[in-house]
Amino acid sequence: MQVIAFDADDTLWVNEPYFQATERKFCELLEDFLPHHTVERELLQTEIQNIKLYGYGVKAFILSMIETAIRVSAGTIPASAIEKVIAYGKEMLNQPIELLPGVETVLESLYGKYRLVVATKGDLLDQERKLRKSGLEKYFHHIEIMSEKAEDDYRKLIRHLDIEPAQFTMIGNSLKSDVLPVLNLGGHGIHVPYHTTWALEKIDFKIEHENFRQVEQIDAILAFL
Amino acid sequence: MQVIAFDADDTLWVNEPYFQATERKFCELLEDFLPHHTVERELLQTEIQNIKLYGYGVKAFILSMIETAIRVSAGTIPASAIEKVIAYGKEMLNQPIELLPGVETVLESLYGKYRLVVATKGDLLDQERKLRKSGLEKYFHHIEIMSEKAEDDYRKLIRHLDIEPAQFTMIGNSLKSDVLPVLNLGGHGIHVPYHTTWALEKIDFKIEHENFRQVEQIDAILAFL
Repeated sequence: MQVIAFDADDTLWVNEPYFQATERKFCELLEDFLPHHTVERELLQTEIQNIKLYGYGVKAFILSMIETAIRVSAGTIPASAIEKVIAYGKEMLNQPIELLPGVETVLESLYGKYRLVVATKGDLLDQERKLRKSGLEKYFHHIEIMSEKAEDDYRKLIRHLDIEPAQFTMIGNSLKSDVLPVLNLGGHGIHVPYHTTWALEKIDFKIEHENFRQVEQIDAILAFL
Repeated sequence: MQVIAFDADDTLWVNEPYFQATERKFCELLEDFLPHHTVERELLQTEIQNIKLYGYGVKAFILSMIETAIRVSAGTIPASAIEKVIAYGKEMLNQPIELLPGVETVLESLYGKYRLVVATKGDLLDQERKLRKSGLEKYFHHIEIMSEKAEDDYRKLIRHLDIEPAQFTMIGNSLKSDVLPVLNLGGHGIHVPYHTTWALEKIDFKIEHENFRQVEQIDAILAFL
């Protein structure tokens, strides 16, 4: 049976806008020290430095915000501001799930015909919780939470699923993480762009590949699957 | 083929002593505000409150230390102290791996005869990194990082492994997380006590069960496996 793997954040449900909204609040918190765009740049810098150590997800994001706040304030940030950053993070973890249009239709119609899995980065517990809260758990064989989404990680995933790369289709909003590495292994990649993309997921070249498709909204995949 | 699952922290390698050492440094950092044992109690309180939201692992621990520091200092803790807490956490994530005695002998001798897996809680990326750093990766079919180790989580794991509970043996230092839930499902549990146990893993009753064994050091399991 063919496996269809779905990215989760910004493919099944809204995610990046919550990070951006939190980032805006974070910039406001620090506006006595630096202008918004500089704080944004500093935060991204911290995230890049920490990603190898912390990985992806909300906890890593909170820790990077705290570290950035201390650095850009030259150690003068009061504890009350750091308390707020922690509260922003907890709010993100408690956010309700907002499904993207077409998602439920797609899963309902593919269920039983393919083995469906979720393949996502992020915090282990947080991603499991989001899947549970989404009400979509019943459609999926299981959820794979990956520390990274590079070729080698997909190779392990495909081996673990006991299939050939050609039997594997990955659907997601990130060309870099969801599509390119899978195409390189001989699998299929479907790109469903989301209106906003995290800086670290951006790539700027065009993909042309026989196993590659791009759709405007996720339910358009039903035309060819 | 029978599956033998190994807990990681304090079963394959040293872990809890690093948490305790960090906790001691954290208490020293706050000794102007509260005596050590009160800070310890406050930190545990914060960890308990956060566990449902953050899960297990070092990132959750850093966040709980920061939150505790702000609370017990009534918001007067300087940013420099919080910076130190973050540094303690990063140090933990960069800690070298110290294997426990007998571990390598056991894995060498069981390899090929059983399907060996790691079944552990904690940070996804951190546990994967520790396994890689340990040099033990080659013995294991794969690593399962679980957000919780209750009966339901083991039920999923056993289903995912495509075996019956009776074909599953779990080896670990925590009666609560590694042994009891597995016995309840009809699997086998081997307890290898470690000299120190995290407060949240402690239980205080005796287990008597035909599928239960306890050994002093991990290599004693070779006598009956």
